[in-house]
Amino acid sequence: MSPTAPIPDSTVPNSDSRYDRQLAKILEHATAIFYEKGYEGASIRDLSRASGMSLAGLYYYFESKEKLLYVIQRHLFLSVMDLVRERLREETDPEQRVRVFILTHLEYFLANPKSMKVLSHEDDVLKEELGADIANLKRQYYRCAADLVDALKAAKGLQFNSRVAVLSLFGMMNWIYTWYNPHVDGDAKLLAREIGDVFLGGIYATLAPPPA
Amino acid sequence: MSPTAPIPDSTVPNSDSRYDRQLAKILEHATAIFYEKGYEGASIRDLSRASGMSLAGLYYYFESKEKLLYVIQRHLFLSVMDLVRERLREETDPEQRVRVFILTHLEYFLANPKSMKVLSHEDDVLKEELGADIANLKRQYYRCAADLVDALKAAKGLQFNSRVAVLSLFGMMNWIYTWYNPHVDGDAKLLAREIGDVFLGGIYATLAPPPA
Repeated sequence: MSPTAPIPDSTVPNSDSRYDRQLAKILEHATAIFYEKGYEGASIRDLSRASGMSLAGLYYYFESKEKLLYVIQRHLFLSVMDLVRERLREETDPEQRVRVFILTHLEYFLANPKSMKVLSHEDDVLKEELGADIANLKRQYYRCAADLVDALKAAKGLQFNSRVAVLSLFGMMNWIYTWYNPHVDGDAKLLAREIGDVFLGGIYATLAPPPA
Repeated sequence: MSPTAPIPDSTVPNSDSRYDRQLAKILEHATAIFYEKGYEGASIRDLSRASGMSLAGLYYYFESKEKLLYVIQRHLFLSVMDLVRERLREETDPEQRVRVFILTHLEYFLANPKSMKVLSHEDDVLKEELGADIANLKRQYYRCAADLVDALKAAKGLQFNSRVAVLSLFGMMNWIYTWYNPHVDGDAKLLAREIGDVFLGGIYATLAPPPA
C-alpha cells in the first residue's frame, strides 16, 4: 500500500455515515463495470465514469484497478460474514444454524447478483498481499460454514467427507448466478429451503439405507 | 460464417485422422490461453503463438477470436455428450445411470480442467447465432441430466423440484474447478461417489423423515 494514499476504512462500511454510503455506491458502480467488462476489459476510465468519481479521485482513494477490486471483494466477504454472525446469534439448533447460513448466503448474493459473478470470475486476479488477504477472508468464510456442518455432523452422528460436502454446498449456492430466474425459481427463502433439503438430506443419508 | 473460410468439421473431432488430432491440439492450446488471459485479455497473436498456427492460418480456419471460442465450447459439449451417451448404453438401473452421468462429467472436466473454467467464465461472450448454438447444446446437456434424474424420481416415487435439484448437481460438479486438489481430494471416481452420495441422499430424503 502506498504511503501517500490514505485508503479509507472502506472495507467495513456498515456504519451509516454519509461517507460510507458514498463509498458503498462507488463500489456498487465499479462492481457493475467489472461484471460487464471483466477485470481485464474494464479500464480505470470506465470505472471512473460509472462511479461518478474523477480519475484523480479514483487514483487517490484506490491507487489502482487492482486495489479497487480488492476493496470490492473484501467488502463483500466482510459484509456477508457480519450478517451470518448476527443471524446465528439467535439460533442454537445445529440444523437450523446450517439453514441460516444457506439462507443468508443466498439472500446476500441474490440481492447482489453482480458481486457473485465478479467474486468468482476475478478470483485469481489479485496477487501477493492483496490476494493473500482475500484468500484468508475466503478461508474464514469457508471455515464458518464447515464449523456449522461439523457441529451438525457431531450432533447427529453422521459420517461423510466434510470438505467435499461443504464445498459441494458452496457449489450449489454459487452456481446459481448462472441460472437463477426469479420468475421461475422464487425468492431466496424458497431456494434456500430446496437447496438446504438436498444438502441436508444428502448428509443425513449417511445414516439411512437408500430406498429399494 | 464467412463463405470464404471453410470451417472444418472440427466440432466432432472424434475420429482418429491426423487432421483431427492436429485440430484438437490447436483447440487445447487456445483453451490454455483463454484460461490464462481470459477472453478479453487474449489476443489473436497470443492464440496464434500458443497454438503454433500462423496468424493467417488462424484467421483462415477460425475467422475471429469469437469463432475460435465457439469451436472450443462446441467441441467440449459434443465430446462430453458423446461420452455420456456411450457409457449409458450399457446401464439400465436408474440410480446407476445418474451416477454414470456424474462420473463422466467429473472425469471429463478433471481431465480438461482449463476447459471447465473457460466454459463457465466465457459463458456470455458469444452472441447471436454462435451464442444461440452453444446455448442450445448446453440445454441438450442439461436435458440429458434432467431426464436421468426424472427417471430415477419416477422409479422411486420421489418428490422434489427437479430444476433446482439438477442445477444444484451441476453446481456441485462445476464449482470443483475452484477447489479441486488431486492430492487431497482423490480422483474423479472418489469425488463422483461422494458428490453422488450427497445428491442422491438428498433427493432420496424426500421419502424419509430427517434423523431425530
